[in-house]
Amino acid sequence: MSPERLARINAMLDMRQPDLTICLEDVHKPHNLSAMIRTADAIGVPEVHAVFLGEDNRLRGGTATGSQQWVKVNRHQSIGDAVARMREQGMQVIATNLSEKAVDFRSIDYTKPTAILMGQEKTGISQEALALADHDVIVPMVGMVQSLNVSVASALLLYEAQRQRQAAGMYGQRRLDEAECQRLLFEGGHP
Amino acid sequence: MSPERLARINAMLDMRQPDLTICLEDVHKPHNLSAMIRTADAIGVPEVHAVFLGEDNRLRGGTATGSQQWVKVNRHQSIGDAVARMREQGMQVIATNLSEKAVDFRSIDYTKPTAILMGQEKTGISQEALALADHDVIVPMVGMVQSLNVSVASALLLYEAQRQRQAAGMYGQRRLDEAECQRLLFEGGHP
Ligand SMILES: C[S@@+](CC[C@H](N)C(=O)[O-])C[C@H]1O[C@@H](n2cnc3c(N)ncnc32)[C@H](O)[C@@H]1O
Ligand SMILES: C[S@@+](CC[C@H](N)C(=O)[O-])C[C@H]1O[C@@H](n2cnc3c(N)ncnc32)[C@H](O)[C@@H]1O
Repeated sequence: MSPERLARINAMLDMRQPDLTICLEDVHKPHNLSAMIRTADAIGVPEVHAVFLGEDNRLRGGTATGSQQWVKVNRHQSIGDAVARMREQGMQVIATNLSEKAVDFRSIDYTKPTAILMGQEKTGISQEALALADHDVIVPMVGMVQSLNVSVASALLLYEAQRQRQAAGMYGQRRLDEAECQRLLFEGGHP
Repeated sequence: MSPERLARINAMLDMRQPDLTICLEDVHKPHNLSAMIRTADAIGVPEVHAVFLGEDNRLRGGTATGSQQWVKVNRHQSIGDAVARMREQGMQVIATNLSEKAVDFRSIDYTKPTAILMGQEKTGISQEALALADHDVIVPMVGMVQSLNVSVASALLLYEAQRQRQAAGMYGQRRLDEAECQRLLFEGGHP
């Protein structure tokens, strides 16, 4: 591996936020999955979670442009399993949901360990997922459409988290565990 | 038209921001176009601009879920024509560009009349467009990918504009001209 590439990967590792993630509940259009993984990588989310109701090979292809090498995708059998995993990691669980009781997405403190649940393109988030979450949040809309594209909605939450974490000084000091850093340095050096 | 629908359309018209727009420079994937128009509608952009280098019938289909009825798409022959139109309307022109000299997208004052230029999926924004713009802006990225999905990037800028305009009290008073309101009320009432 060239010294430049090593430095680039190390700089990226210093920005990773191990206590921030998204969980995709049956999001299945490849272009949405790709866009979401790209955004996760861009703000330093090292690992995302996914629950698929049908076959689960949809993460191949699309235009995630290499980000899948850098963002680990954890598949789970059910949303219950996925949330249990996030709870073990001490995360608050935020469901994005187009309901009356949802609060503005900007009112949440994303400097806390946080998992954000995103719903399926057509049907949205499940009742089961809602029941497991601490808060429902909504991105305000003042037009005629009922919802935003799911990759757009997740990016708005993730960049709000990035803004808050940047202000709180949470970037630029290594927070990812050493074994994971070594794995990424090894795999990234020998692609 | 039912009284409820009339009230809904009137409420939407009170939120429209006639002095905020995006211009798509050869953005051509239908799912990106659809997502961008949905987001425009959601924050109250009444009209977007598009320059297509190939055939220009790509806005049909996709999942803009009815928003194309509510957001006017103005096609232009060239980026020069498009920018001339925005300048006539007194707008500052902001180019999104992955360059060294680009400033953070959050440092711009979007309460001013503003047009945001978005580049093509593969090639990005053209030199011609950059030369016509007042500022280059970038959405900060700290991962390994080179760029965000174009509909994601435009949504981040538009929702930053929404945040600033909301804080400045620019929503909730009718700012769209009366003829355009009448057209939308008529067409929306007789879809
Ligand atoms: C296209 S939407 C699903 C629409 C579905 N008809 C519903 O009512 O939930 C897909 C997912 O995008 C996210 N989403 C879309 N618009 C949102 C908004 N304005 N606020 C929060 N989440 C949103 C949610 O995760 C949602 O489950
Ligand atoms: C996929 S990118 C194009 C990448 C192209 N290789 C380049 O270097 O410009 C498509 C468009 O999305 C927007 N975009 C993507 N990521 C961005 C970012 N981080 N900041 C600002 N704009 C971005 C720009 O409008 C860009 O032209």
